[in-house]
Amino acid sequence: MPSLTQPIASLPAEPSISADRRLMERRKALLGPVYRAFYSEPVHLVSGSGVWLRDAHGNTFLDAYNNVPSVGHCHPHVVAALATQAAKLNTHTRYLSEVVLDYVEKLLRTCPSALKHAMFTCTGSEANDLALRIAQHASGGTGVVITKFAYHGATIATSQLSPGDGGASIVAPHDRTVDAPDTYRNGGNGADDFAESVRRAIDSMTENGIKPAALLIDSAFSSDGIFFPKPQVMQKAAAYVKAAGAVLIADEVQAGFGRFGNAMWGFQHYGLEPDIVTLGKPMGAGHPIGGLIVTPEVIGSFAARSGYFNTFGGNPVAAAVGIAVLEVIESESLMDNARTVGAYLGSRLRQLQHRHPIIGDVRNCGLYFGVEFSDESQTGQSLASATVAFVNEMRRRGVLISSCGPEGNILKIRPPLPFSQANADQLVETMDGILSRR
Amino acid sequence: MPSLTQPIASLPAEPSISADRRLMERRKALLGPVYRAFYSEPVHLVSGSGVWLRDAHGNTFLDAYNNVPSVGHCHPHVVAALATQAAKLNTHTRYLSEVVLDYVEKLLRTCPSALKHAMFTCTGSEANDLALRIAQHASGGTGVVITKFAYHGATIATSQLSPGDGGASIVAPHDRTVDAPDTYRNGGNGADDFAESVRRAIDSMTENGIKPAALLIDSAFSSDGIFFPKPQVMQKAAAYVKAAGAVLIADEVQAGFGRFGNAMWGFQHYGLEPDIVTLGKPMGAGHPIGGLIVTPEVIGSFAARSGYFNTFGGNPVAAAVGIAVLEVIESESLMDNARTVGAYLGSRLRQLQHRHPIIGDVRNCGLYFGVEFSDESQTGQSLASATVAFVNEMRRRGVLISSCGPEGNILKIRPPLPFSQANADQLVETMDGILSRR
Repeated sequence: MPSLTQPIASLPAEPSISADRRLMERRKALLGPVYRAFYSEPVHLVSGSGVWLRDAHGNTFLDAYNNVPSVGHCHPHVVAALATQAAKLNTHTRYLSEVVLDYVEKLLRTCPSALKHAMFTCTGSEANDLALRIAQHASGGTGVVITKFAYHGATIATSQLSPGDGGASIVAPHDRTVDAPDTYRNGGNGADDFAESVRRAIDSMTENGIKPAALLIDSAFSSDGIFFPKPQVMQKAAAYVKAAGAVLIADEVQAGFGRFGNAMWGFQHYGLEPDIVTLGKPMGAGHPIGGLIVTPEVIGSFAARSGYFNTFGGNPVAAAVGIAVLEVIESESLMDNARTVGAYLGSRLRQLQHRHPIIGDVRNCGLYFGVEFSDESQTGQSLASATVAFVNEMRRRGVLISSCGPEGNILKIRPPLPFSQANADQLVETMDGILSRR
Repeated sequence: MPSLTQPIASLPAEPSISADRRLMERRKALLGPVYRAFYSEPVHLVSGSGVWLRDAHGNTFLDAYNNVPSVGHCHPHVVAALATQAAKLNTHTRYLSEVVLDYVEKLLRTCPSALKHAMFTCTGSEANDLALRIAQHASGGTGVVITKFAYHGATIATSQLSPGDGGASIVAPHDRTVDAPDTYRNGGNGADDFAESVRRAIDSMTENGIKPAALLIDSAFSSDGIFFPKPQVMQKAAAYVKAAGAVLIADEVQAGFGRFGNAMWGFQHYGLEPDIVTLGKPMGAGHPIGGLIVTPEVIGSFAARSGYFNTFGGNPVAAAVGIAVLEVIESESLMDNARTVGAYLGSRLRQLQHRHPIIGDVRNCGLYFGVEFSDESQTGQSLASATVAFVNEMRRRGVLISSCGPEGNILKIRPPLPFSQANADQLVETMDGILSRR
């Protein structure tokens, strides 16, 4: 795949644009009206390797967005594990299989010893849905505290806990939303108030006769705008939750598997002791694997009253793929890379911020970045429109990123973990080129 | 893999039993208390091919149970498609990809032309969960009619529509259960009453101010005991549902993909015109694929108010695998085989019924069989215990089946579709051997 010295993508010629338009029409006819594509000129991809993606017109893109292939696109070690196990055996957890137990052992070694059991689903949505059922049994309660623009999944139950999902979500009357710990606006006061907000949410439940079930937190506050509050604030919020008899669920679907650089899991970065940890996206590098890790105390009351079976969840192929992903994270020192390249990219983006006042804030933990556009006077348009235009121009120049936050003004940058300093340079220089042109 | 002339499995020797027991203990320590294994002596599988599975002790089992690998275990064409696409590209539906559109075209060609769009999930549970959301939007209602011992999934929403799931499910006050169309007991009167039961359930909703949303029906009534009622009865029930402005959801997660032999989908066997068809299990031969097919009318109101994105659902690898599964069903004439071997196995099982009065009923459509144990005087124990003992003895003799139904007295036989006449003979002769011994 290309080195930085190769030319980055240029605008596709007319004929290929109309080919992509025909593809979009065919897509709409077949997939119907619900599916959305990224970018004003959607990308028609045909292959991927490492941090690189290639489209049908021969253009190459630097992937600075996709956290699912966190070990790199189409990693040969993962593909080999997938192909080998799929050719040998692929059944389910109602038969005995050693590979799934080997996987659990490997997974649990990355966690505090209180988390003793793993259960498997196929998606992060299913993992959060199951975590919610478990929390309800363990606490005897129903009320869940989430952040105001959270996203926790696409099942009926988790979509009600996902106000960040395009406004379609209706939070149930027994749940409560709190402001995300905003470390930027108002001098970061919102972040420090987070624990008190959680306490007030729990008090409001009990005042209304609702028993609290859980605090469900995405460790990177991915939809809310990507924040990394002080560990003490998070610990204080967790303490309120546990004191109320509710369960702490660390949603690591976005943040987990080493992206934070300084820890395998986001909750470790904050020094939290969750009762349930939910997993997804990077877990299988694109293979549909989700799951959760749980304490014996919390799973006990669920097990006493309920069963759970997921036909594909934890099957031998999923387990073989899961092991391969963990092996690549170790053998290629991807956590170290997330930390060192994350620090390098952070310093380069902060240099960019000094030269371009539209950048109000650069925040990151490892290779998870939020870059907030904030000075409307710089843009000549709304911040949301400026952000969309910027993301589209990045795509035109061969770098894939996206945006998030309630106002859509925050760049979401979370590349595959093998992202190098040279990749970081290309990302920053492409951003600089666009911002300098304004 | 073995022919019928090879010896079938014998009892594992003592050392391997204790090895399996250690494995069970390790499993309980790692997976926790929720996971259940099949059989009093769980099977420790290591490889599979076609209709055969092999355990860690070198024993071979005839698989007469698993409908997920419906094209046969580890089918080389499916494995090759999986490995090839996984090595090339595995992203998601927010980029354009031709393979997912090729898959939808292939899938829609198996359906009535009114069903124009496909959407993808990773499991049948997610498919039913999404179908429910769509039905609620399309109908403006909330009430769902299901059968009394139905199973439709493991998410919070679908588990509430799954009273057949070990008794843990609590059906919501706005939903209604109806007796399954029992074609055996009371001379099959229950089956003929099915449409009236559905009508009464809908009337009961409207009398209580509940707007009906859907009739959700597993085309094989898999958990209720496996029934194949008259098409006219099903059509009448569907007409009541549509007249009430509710949506007909055909849950084909168990029955679909050619198993019925005379049709690709169970709803076609009944001559129904569903608004939504939900898919899962055999769709990816073990790869986690689920989805639904829907009319433009029904998806329209959902699309107007809601988005849906499933990170892994409909990704290029899932699509390549889905195509390969459909190709194998065609190229190996598996539907034809399900019909002819289904008919052969049916006649042999009915011969068995004449000689063994414990068999009260043999019912099937293609290669989906329910064999009901009914004469308690024959067993010396409860029918449920006799059925469990029978299923365990089948496993001991090298043939894998299971049981179902509210009373657990119905053998569930639904082998991979390449099941041959010789495989059917082995199944029937093994059953005969056990029943003759009584």
